[in-house]
Amino acid sequence: MGNYTDLDVKAINTIRTLAVDATAQANSGHPGAPMGMAPVAHVLFNKFMTFNPKNPEWLNRDRFVLSNGHGCMLQYALLHLFGYGVSMDDLKNFRQIDSITPGHPEAHDTPGIEVTTGPLGQGFANAVGLAIAERHSSAVFNKPGYELFNNYTYAFFGDGCAMEGIASEAASMAGHLQLGNLIMIYDDNHISIDGDTKCAFTEDVMKRFEAYGWHTQHVADGDSDLDGIEAAIKKAQEVKDKPSVIKLTTTIGFGSKLQGTGGVHGNPLQADDIKSVKEKFGFDPEKTFVVPQEVYDQYHKHAAEGAAAEQEWNQLFEKYGKEYPDLHKDLIRRRNRDLPEGWEKSLPTYKPTDSAIASRKLSEAVLEAIHDVVPELISGSADLTGSNNTRWKKAVDFQPPNLGIGEWSGRYMRYGVREHAMAAVMNGLSAYGTIIPAGGTFLNFVSYAAGAVRLSALSHQRLIHVATHDSIGLGEDGPTHQPIETLAHFRALPNCMVWRPADGNETSAAYYMALTSKSTPSILALTRQNLPQLEGSTLENGIKGGYVALEKEGADITLVSTGSEVSLCLEAVKTLEEQGLKARVVSLPCWEVFDAQPKEYKLKVIPDGIPSLSVEVMSTMGWEKYSHEQFGLNRFGASGPYKEVYKKFEFTPEGIAKRAKLTVDFYKDVKPLRSPLNRAFQQLI
Amino acid sequence: MGNYTDLDVKAINTIRTLAVDATAQANSGHPGAPMGMAPVAHVLFNKFMTFNPKNPEWLNRDRFVLSNGHGCMLQYALLHLFGYGVSMDDLKNFRQIDSITPGHPEAHDTPGIEVTTGPLGQGFANAVGLAIAERHSSAVFNKPGYELFNNYTYAFFGDGCAMEGIASEAASMAGHLQLGNLIMIYDDNHISIDGDTKCAFTEDVMKRFEAYGWHTQHVADGDSDLDGIEAAIKKAQEVKDKPSVIKLTTTIGFGSKLQGTGGVHGNPLQADDIKSVKEKFGFDPEKTFVVPQEVYDQYHKHAAEGAAAEQEWNQLFEKYGKEYPDLHKDLIRRRNRDLPEGWEKSLPTYKPTDSAIASRKLSEAVLEAIHDVVPELISGSADLTGSNNTRWKKAVDFQPPNLGIGEWSGRYMRYGVREHAMAAVMNGLSAYGTIIPAGGTFLNFVSYAAGAVRLSALSHQRLIHVATHDSIGLGEDGPTHQPIETLAHFRALPNCMVWRPADGNETSAAYYMALTSKSTPSILALTRQNLPQLEGSTLENGIKGGYVALEKEGADITLVSTGSEVSLCLEAVKTLEEQGLKARVVSLPCWEVFDAQPKEYKLKVIPDGIPSLSVEVMSTMGWEKYSHEQFGLNRFGASGPYKEVYKKFEFTPEGIAKRAKLTVDFYKDVKPLRSPLNRAFQQLI
Repeated sequence: MGNYTDLDVKAINTIRTLAVDATAQANSGHPGAPMGMAPVAHVLFNKFMTFNPKNPEWLNRDRFVLSNGHGCMLQYALLHLFGYGVSMDDLKNFRQIDSITPGHPEAHDTPGIEVTTGPLGQGFANAVGLAIAERHSSAVFNKPGYELFNNYTYAFFGDGCAMEGIASEAASMAGHLQLGNLIMIYDDNHISIDGDTKCAFTEDVMKRFEAYGWHTQHVADGDSDLDGIEAAIKKAQEVKDKPSVIKLTTTIGFGSKLQGTGGVHGNPLQADDIKSVKEKFGFDPEKTFVVPQEVYDQYHKHAAEGAAAEQEWNQLFEKYGKEYPDLHKDLIRRRNRDLPEGWEKSLPTYKPTDSAIASRKLSEAVLEAIHDVVPELISGSADLTGSNNTRWKKAVDFQPPNLGIGEWSGRYMRYGVREHAMAAVMNGLSAYGTIIPAGGTFLNFVSYAAGAVRLSALSHQRLIHVATHDSIGLGEDGPTHQPIETLAHFRALPNCMVWRPADGNETSAAYYMALTSKSTPSILALTRQNLPQLEGSTLENGIKGGYVALEKEGADITLVSTGSEVSLCLEAVKTLEEQGLKARVVSLPCWEVFDAQPKEYKLKVIPDGIPSLSVEVMSTMGWEKYSHEQFGLNRFGASGPYKEVYKKFEFTPEGIAKRAKLTVDFYKDVKPLRSPLNRAFQQLI
Repeated sequence: MGNYTDLDVKAINTIRTLAVDATAQANSGHPGAPMGMAPVAHVLFNKFMTFNPKNPEWLNRDRFVLSNGHGCMLQYALLHLFGYGVSMDDLKNFRQIDSITPGHPEAHDTPGIEVTTGPLGQGFANAVGLAIAERHSSAVFNKPGYELFNNYTYAFFGDGCAMEGIASEAASMAGHLQLGNLIMIYDDNHISIDGDTKCAFTEDVMKRFEAYGWHTQHVADGDSDLDGIEAAIKKAQEVKDKPSVIKLTTTIGFGSKLQGTGGVHGNPLQADDIKSVKEKFGFDPEKTFVVPQEVYDQYHKHAAEGAAAEQEWNQLFEKYGKEYPDLHKDLIRRRNRDLPEGWEKSLPTYKPTDSAIASRKLSEAVLEAIHDVVPELISGSADLTGSNNTRWKKAVDFQPPNLGIGEWSGRYMRYGVREHAMAAVMNGLSAYGTIIPAGGTFLNFVSYAAGAVRLSALSHQRLIHVATHDSIGLGEDGPTHQPIETLAHFRALPNCMVWRPADGNETSAAYYMALTSKSTPSILALTRQNLPQLEGSTLENGIKGGYVALEKEGADITLVSTGSEVSLCLEAVKTLEEQGLKARVVSLPCWEVFDAQPKEYKLKVIPDGIPSLSVEVMSTMGWEKYSHEQFGLNRFGASGPYKEVYKKFEFTPEGIAKRAKLTVDFYKDVKPLRSPLNRAFQQLI
C-alpha cells in the first residue's frame, strides 16, 4: 500500500459504514456511491485539499463539488470527520425534516457544502464556474509575493452527470478555457439506475474529454489502489494548462453483498448485508455510527493543518493590505457581498423627454455606467453578445492569455451556445464569493437553463440573467423564439426575481435590486424594440416592484402592466377617455419585489373599489393575483414585423380599451369590489 | 467538377440568390448559412434523397432536418424548387405574418418541413428520433421481399447546435444505438453570432463524435467540391452500423463581400453587396427572386423520380397487404394516427374499494394493460425505469441486436440520463408517423427538457411525459427534487396537456386523452406515494379534465384540487362538517381539457354563489383562474418522510379546513359572488 497504512483503510471503511448506517436509519438514500468513492475521497481530502472546517468561508480554500449529489452521505461523513459544523446527530438525522443533512447537498444549509447538487450535471458545471472564479480572482488580486488565490477545484461525478448535456457543455467550455486548476474524478462504476451502463452509455468518455482539450488519466482499481489515486491527482495538479479528469474504476457499494449492481445505488442495505459489511470491514456489526478515535485524530490533524494554512494566509493578506490597501479593501468588501459605497449613483436615470430606447440597450447603458464602479461584475453571453448587448465597450474577454484574445483578468465571458452550462457556471461564479455574474441569452432560451436557474434560487445565488427579445416584440424570428410561458415559469419559482422593466429608470431599478439582493437571482426580461421613457417612472418607484405610473381621480379601472405594454396602456388611457372612461395605470415590473411591500402601499397601487385589467403580451397565468381580468396571449405568437404581430393579437390602444370597457361593465354590480390583493389568508413562506 | 456541370452551379447559386433576395425583402433573416450550405444541399437532395413533393407524408421518404433552423431560407428555396406547396409568393412573404415561411421552420405550417427547428440543438435530436423510428418501423413491418422502410435521415447542423448539450446527449445516444441510417452534415464555418468560434469553441468536434461511436469524415472545400461532398455522403451510406457525420468546411455567406464573417450570419446583405453577389454568380443584379427554367427543370425531374419511387412503393405496399393483411392495416391505421378500434376497453378501471396505489404504479398498470393493443406505443425512461414504472413486464429493449440486450423491434427505450434529448427524440419519433412515444423522468427534471417540450407543443406532436415523483410527496430526496414551479410552467405552455390524476380512473383518463389527442403532447404528473381510489371518479368524469368528486347540497365552499390532494380534501370535508361547514370537492386533473368543456358544464363544476379554495401542494400560480383563494406551496419543499413534509406545510385535513373557513368568512359579504370561471371577455386563442 506504499504510503498508506491500515489506519487509512479504517478511515475509508468508517466513511463507508457511516453511509450504510445513515441510509439504513433514514430507510432512504444512496449508499452505493459513498461506499465506492470513499477511497478517493479519503486520499483527496487528506493528501491534497486545504481547508479550515472552522471557517468554511475562507476565500482560498480548495473547493469540492459532489456532482453526483445523491452520494451526499459521503460528503456529510467527511464534513463530520473533519470537524465542520456537522455533528453525529446530524448524520443520524440524515434526510429528516429540518436537518442540515438533506437528501441532496444544499449549499445554503450545511457548512462546508459549496454548491447545491443532486440534479445531475449541475455540480459539474458549478465546478467549472468555481475554477473560472479562482483563475479570475488570482489574476485580479495576486501580486508578486502575494499568491492570495491558488486553490484548486475538485469534483466527483458519475455516469449520470457524464450523460447530461449540461456537463458536456461545461466540459467543452473548461477545455477551451484551459482550466488547469480544475480536477475531476469520474466514478466509472458502470452502474446507473437502469442497471449496467451498457444499456445506454457506451461512448468512450475519456476520448470525449480529450476532444474537449482535457488531460485524462485512468486508475483501474479505485477500490484499493490508494497510491495510484494519489499519483493521478498529483499528476493532474502538475498539468497547468488543461483541466484534468481521472477515470476511476470503482465498485459501487463496495463491501455489500450487492456490490457492483444497481441494487445498491439508491436503496439502503438489508439488515443482514449491513452486518456482513461491518464484519468484512472489522467493525462491530451490532454498533451503528461508529467512528474510531484514531480516524477522528487523523482527520482532525488534517483539519488543523488547514486552520494553520488559513492563519498563514490571513497574515499574508494583512501584509498585502499594507502594500495594496485598495485591493485589500476591495476583496474584503466582495467577501462580505457588499457593493462599493455610492455605486448606485452611477446608475443611469432618464427624463420623459429622453428618446425611446430598447430595454436591452438600456441594460447595456447600465453595464456601461457601472462596470467601473462594480468591479466584481462579470458579464457574458451565450453567443448573443450583439443581440443581448451585454458587453461594455472596453470589456476584455476572460480567456487564456495564450489565445491572444483576452486575459484571465478579463470580465467578459464567451459562454458559447450553452445556456444551461452558462447558468450553472454562473452559480459557481457566484458561490466562489468574489464575483457577481451576469449572462445573456434570449428570454426564450433561459428555459434551456431551467434546471440551473432553479438551483440559483434554491441555493441563494446572486446573479443576473440578461434575457433579451422578451416577447412577440422580437418579431420576425417567430414562435420558436417568442416567449409565452417563460415569465409564468420563473415567476412561479420561489426566490427568483423576474423583472420586466418598462423604460430606462425601471431598468436601472432592476439592476439596483438585482445587485443589492445578496441571495436572490434575477431574470431581466428586456425588449428588442424601442420603449419610450415614462412620466411616472423613477428609480425609487421602480425598486418597489410596482407603482402607479399614471394616477387618475375617480378612475373607473386600473390597467396593470409590465415592460413594453405599459406605454401601450398609457395610450389606451386616451382612447378610453374618448369613450368617457377614466383609467389609471400601474407598472408592475417585478412581482416578487412588489409582493414584499407593505400591504398598505400595495393597496394604494391596486386599490379596492374599481376593477383592474392586466395587460402583458404573453401567458396570463398568475396575473389574476394582481387583476380582476387579464389580457394576454395564451397561444403561440407569429413571425412578422413586430408592430404587425402586436396588431394581429390586438395589443393596440384600441384592443386594450375594448377589454377595459368590458371589464368595467362586468364588475359594475359587484359589491364590495375588493382589490385582488385582498386575500382571505396569508400564504406560507 | 467530375459529375457536376455548370447547371449544378447555377442551381446552387439560384438557392443562394433566393436566400439573399428573401432576407433582403423581409429586411430580416439569416442569409449566411443558406449561401454556405447551398452546395451540400444541392448534392444531397438531388443525388441521394428520395421524396415526393406532391405527397410530403409518404411514409418511406428520406427525412431532412435543418437543425440550424435559422438558415431556413435554404430549406424554403429547396421546397419551392422541387415543387412542394411553397410558391414563389411564399418565398416573397418570408418572415411575414401568416405566411408559411416563418422565421424558423415550423413542421405544422409548411409542407415538407419534418420538424420545427431553430432553437439550437433540437433538430439534431429530432433527427436521432426520426432515425430510431425508421429502424424500429423497418424491424416491425419489413418482410422478405418487402423493404417498406429503408429511408435515411439527413440533418444539417452548425456550430451552435454542436455546442448545445442536447445535441451531445442525442449524439451519444445515436452512437450507442448504432444508427447507420443517420447521416449528419456539420457546417464547419467557424462563425457563430459572437464571431469566430475560436472565442468559445475550440474542441475537436470530430474526435468527440468518434468517442460517441460515430463514423466521421471531413470535406475540406464545402464551397465547391461537389464530388467530394457526394463521395462522402456515399461513403456514409455504406457505413451500416454507425451514424455518420461529415464535417464540411464552408464559407458562411459565400459570395458576399462579408463572406466568412459574422456580419453575414443574421443580417440581410446590403444593396451593393446583393448586386455584387448576383454579378459574381452571373445573375442579373437588377432582378430579384430569379429561378432559371433549367434549374426548375432539373429539380422537377428529381421530384418526378421521387413521385415514381413512391408509386413503386405504393404498389409494393398493396402487394404486401395481400400477404400481410394485418400489418398492412396496422400501418395504414398508424399513418392516419388512429388508434386500434376498441383499444380503450383495455384501460384499467377501479372501484372505490380497490386498494390505494401510487399513480406511478397506476400508470404502469395502464401501460401493462394497453401495450398489446396499442403496438405503436414505445415507452422508455431517462434512466429511471424502476422509479418511473414505465416498463411493462415483457417489454423488449430497443437496442442494436449485436449488443445482445434487445432488438430493433423492441419497444422500450433506454434514453440514459438525458432528459432534454429524450424529449426531443420523442418529437422525432412522433414526427415519423408510426410511433407514439412515452418517456419517463421525475417531474422536476422535465424542466431539463423545457426547450424540447415547448417544441412538442408548438409542432403538435403526440407524446407522453411520464413525470413521476410529482411533489413534496417524494419525501426524502428533498427540495432539489421536489417540483414547485413545474406545473405552472407547463400549464402556461399553449397546447400542452398537464395531467395530475388523483387515482386509478383518472390515470386511465389521462392516458385516454393523451393517446386520442392527435396533436397535443401530455405531461402526466404522478405520485411516488399511494393514493386511494375515489368515490366520484370515473373514466368518463376524468376525460372532462375536471368534475365534481363530491357534491353537497347547500355547500358553503368548493374545494378544487388535483392528484394526491383530492383525497386530502375529501378528508377535510369531514373536518369542516364538524365545524358546521359544508364543502363540496372538485377534482381538476387537467386544466387544458377542462377549459375546453362547455361553459355550462364548467359552471356546474365550479358554480357561482359560493367561494372556492384550490388545494395543490406546489405553486399557487394560475389557480386563481379556478378558485377564489389558493392553498399551495410558494416556497421550496423539505427533505424528510413525505407525511412529515406534508404536515410541516399544513397539508392536512385540518390545514385545509382552516383555510376553507377563512375563505368562507372572507367572501360572506360579496354579492354577487361569481364563479372565477365567469369572465368579462374571452381570451384570444
